Amino acid sequence: MLKYLNVKTTQRTELINITSQVQKEITEADMEQGACYVFVPHTTAGVTINEGADPSVQTDMLAIFSRLVPKDPQYRHAEGNSDAHAKSSMVGASLFVPVHEGKLILGTWQAIFFAEFDGPRHRRVAVKLISG
Amino acid sequence: MLKYLNVKTTQRTELINITSQVQKEITEADMEQGACYVFVPHTTAGVTINEGADPSVQTDMLAIFSRLVPKDPQYRHAEGNSDAHAKSSMVGASLFVPVHEGKLILGTWQAIFFAEFDGPRHRRVAVKLISG
Amino acid sequence: MLKYLNVKTTQRTELINITSQVQKEITEADMEQGACYVFVPHTTAGVTINEGADPSVQTDMLAIFSRLVPKDPQYRHAEGNSDAHAKSSMVGASLFVPVHEGKLILGTWQAIFFAEFDGPRHRRVAVKLISG
Repeated sequence: MLKYLNVKTTQRTELINITSQVQKEITEADMEQGACYVFVPHTTAGVTINEGADPSVQTDMLAIFSRLVPKDPQYRHAEGNSDAHAKSSMVGASLFVPVHEGKLILGTWQAIFFAEFDGPRHRRVAVKLISG
Repeated sequence: MLKYLNVKTTQRTELINITSQVQKEITEADMEQGACYVFVPHTTAGVTINEGADPSVQTDMLAIFSRLVPKDPQYRHAEGNSDAHAKSSMVGASLFVPVHEGKLILGTWQAIFFAEFDGPRHRRVAVKLISG
Repeated sequence: MLKYLNVKTTQRTELINITSQVQKEITEADMEQGACYVFVPHTTAGVTINEGADPSVQTDMLAIFSRLVPKDPQYRHAEGNSDAHAKSSMVGASLFVPVHEGKLILGTWQAIFFAEFDGPRHRRVAVKLISG
């Protein structure tokens, strides 16, 4: 099963918790055991798992990534957003979470985040489920 | 099949070779062909594949990550470990290795490492196998 | 199905578009629906998805990675290529792309790149397909 979620971002860099949207696809597909893959079809965004409880973690993480790869006008790419492309490859465009008894088996503090690095934009996220 | 490994870390940042523990699950499950997914249910740790032969590589890698993202007391997150959260997203919480004739198909120098960024702690690693 | 691609790199750091080689394996395997996993069996290289249209993006990304992790002669690892090992773990050795109606479901601007960080070398890339 392959489904797409819609995500609307409102900042240039932003982490948006999509855990409940991903879980909803598993519940609707009635999958009991298997693997859930999340894939982002964009080159200036990514998908990552991190702490969902304290929003300060997300603020700190975005600050760390912006300090590591600043939005520098000297990039060759004419759109001037090469920082976003690099962050996309650092975080990654795909991830995997196990599914057990119909639920994403995330750790206590974990949430799945869409990672926007060149918003605000309308984005899509693919969710692929494989039983087994 | 979904199984959990236990990993005990002894340093704040540490790479622990878990290849033989992952291979043991494949052998016990008697899986011949398929995919092995490794998933870390923690937000201040990750899982990565890198050189298992020379321990200096692990020392250098941890030094590089600590230089890139220092343990800085100015983070907003009150626990003060936002560096570990950022490193977790840089390295990632999930990975995939092909399985062929009952073996992880790793390259000559590759090993699977649990990446501790905020230890020492007792940690868990999920191993999910899908035949095919 | 598990297949290997051959990739010849010509620079120390280089992004090589392997999308059409990966798609060819899916077409030859006649897989309609499922998951495509790409795995790099090397510890000084990786695999990533990013923009395939404007080559300046690749130039900028390699410059960003080289600035973040310079080739520093002070590494403990005697081969002196610990920068390449760190970049390999930052980018990752495995990724996933959904397959729908026999095609990799990549976004408009996306391509799959072999990421060389210690070339030039002869390299291999594993492609694993799982239907479902």
